[in-house]
Amino acid sequence: MSDSKYQTIYFKNKPKIIGFYSIVGPKEGKGSLKEYFDYIMKDDLFGEKTYEKAERKMVEQAVMGAVYNANITPKELQLFLSGDLLNQIVTSSFAARSFDVPYVGLFGACSTMAESLAVGASLVNAGYFNNVACSTASHFSTAERQFRYPLELGNQRPPTSQWTVTGAGCCILSNKGDGPVITSATFGKVTDFGINDVNNMGSVMAPGAASTLIAHFNDTNTTPDDYDLIVTGDLGKLGSEILIDLMEDHGFKMGVNYNDCGQIIYNGKQSVLMGGSGCGCSATVLNSYILKKIKNGEYKKVLFVATGALLSATSTQQGDTIPGIAHAVVIESQENFDNSKKNVKSKKRSKK
Amino acid sequence: MSDSKYQTIYFKNKPKIIGFYSIVGPKEGKGSLKEYFDYIMKDDLFGEKTYEKAERKMVEQAVMGAVYNANITPKELQLFLSGDLLNQIVTSSFAARSFDVPYVGLFGACSTMAESLAVGASLVNAGYFNNVACSTASHFSTAERQFRYPLELGNQRPPTSQWTVTGAGCCILSNKGDGPVITSATFGKVTDFGINDVNNMGSVMAPGAASTLIAHFNDTNTTPDDYDLIVTGDLGKLGSEILIDLMEDHGFKMGVNYNDCGQIIYNGKQSVLMGGSGCGCSATVLNSYILKKIKNGEYKKVLFVATGALLSATSTQQGDTIPGIAHAVVIESQENFDNSKKNVKSKKRSKK
Repeated sequence: MSDSKYQTIYFKNKPKIIGFYSIVGPKEGKGSLKEYFDYIMKDDLFGEKTYEKAERKMVEQAVMGAVYNANITPKELQLFLSGDLLNQIVTSSFAARSFDVPYVGLFGACSTMAESLAVGASLVNAGYFNNVACSTASHFSTAERQFRYPLELGNQRPPTSQWTVTGAGCCILSNKGDGPVITSATFGKVTDFGINDVNNMGSVMAPGAASTLIAHFNDTNTTPDDYDLIVTGDLGKLGSEILIDLMEDHGFKMGVNYNDCGQIIYNGKQSVLMGGSGCGCSATVLNSYILKKIKNGEYKKVLFVATGALLSATSTQQGDTIPGIAHAVVIESQENFDNSKKNVKSKKRSKK
Repeated sequence: MSDSKYQTIYFKNKPKIIGFYSIVGPKEGKGSLKEYFDYIMKDDLFGEKTYEKAERKMVEQAVMGAVYNANITPKELQLFLSGDLLNQIVTSSFAARSFDVPYVGLFGACSTMAESLAVGASLVNAGYFNNVACSTASHFSTAERQFRYPLELGNQRPPTSQWTVTGAGCCILSNKGDGPVITSATFGKVTDFGINDVNNMGSVMAPGAASTLIAHFNDTNTTPDDYDLIVTGDLGKLGSEILIDLMEDHGFKMGVNYNDCGQIIYNGKQSVLMGGSGCGCSATVLNSYILKKIKNGEYKKVLFVATGALLSATSTQQGDTIPGIAHAVVIESQENFDNSKKNVKSKKRSKK
């Protein structure tokens, strides 16, 4: 990337996802993807005294599970990139205490899974680190009471609201080994369409997703058809519909290969209104369903676009609108990446 | 860096600080470094209705000021890396809204200036971006009421407490142009010595600073004597003394070239107890006094170690201890960097 108008960077040294892990709460464990998760908690407290400590323990387990699945030792881990929804990202920072590894705290609200992968792939691709853990988490019971109302209030949820996923996910990125390859990343800009309803996150994040998708397609000279799956983080039903409309306004037709993690994590019978949300939504869907389908060959090229709503309780109380952001990474199956390299080589040969 | 035990990465393509800017509150504007700041606000509200909005405006001004000082256009900026102390880093995220630039949100508490420089230098050095803004800020009136007590309470401050700096700083990193060079970065591990006193941040952060300094000296095979200045972020008087003791325990003698931003930003007559703190402390001291002295040749090689206390009001209320972290970057004068390259070349030649 040299021209300032581009937002996408490319990874020639093919940083690979050599291990991944997902852990979810009991509600998510009854959803559509229950067979794909590594671990389903029996209850939301996970043996801890507070939900906040449960969330922290989930990140610890996700990282250690991903390290185990990557077939490396904890000592081989060189960097931990993580963020979450809690004030001062204490989930990630306190979890980092239990690993003897340098830590970079990130915050992109629910876009954090893509943000950590984009930054992590940048660092691995450049040769600075060999094995990097990229992680995030959310917990219904910690997020709801921090951003909205006390759980005990039992207040009604408006129809536009989504359900914060209880779950954590982690990828181990490496310059060695086998696994799905991160081939590019598109860093998002902050958008603001003037929405100030904390129960309508899909509408906040859809413009962020559209901005990043349009930048990605233009930068990479691709169209929605070039991907087996384009998946947004947690726009939910309403947000996804807004995104499809916004993309069409800009000349991009989102086809049947488009889906949203917030729409697929729960099943139709679960009372979640517009669908799932929270950092853990895209993190657990990526680190289970999506990466498993890339590994087994069902998907060859996936555009993963995690979406975040940038607000605090204070900003809302002070009458601020809610900005949105989305970061995107392209994840390709190793075979697809190797084949595209071969094609480039054979094209070069035929030119000679 | 290939061995997993190392925490330091090196930048061969010499990412340069081509522009920088600092803005401070009226109290900081009466301190020891008053002549070095770019802008001193007349009052803490900076023309806004809330302190939170003032803090945001400070970041916007710091970034635009640094862009101007870097002699580039806002359109040439390719990435904005920022974080702050407020819940969900709303200062940075809302400021990002006013720039038409991709944004990566970071959180390292008061270590964020070094964290953003370390990540930014990594991305510029690898050739992903040409011009990156690295920024952070804090505001006494927003931080105190969020982390401790309402300002209106006017409660007594214990002798170990520090004064949160009202200020913002920004560096523009570039692969072109002239300016101080970032030659390496050491990413810190999270430490926890079991302190849970929110009015004793120096003691929380000193072990984090010691951990990163020891890793840095060991990784780079240097000693404290190899730097014209080693400067920690905001340990304050007590924290600095603890750091000196901890380093001595590990065989490193911190000499007269060691100082702490929290100890130099205010003058002796100002009632700040142990000194300054907050993200804005190291950010404003770096982006005024330190970088100006590197540019004018007084300092050739500076080790900048920003230190953070990782806590939230919730974690404290739930009885958690407070972990600490520090990230470090080495900043060299352009002449020093060019000379050391020449020396390497002439050594190679003389070997032949």
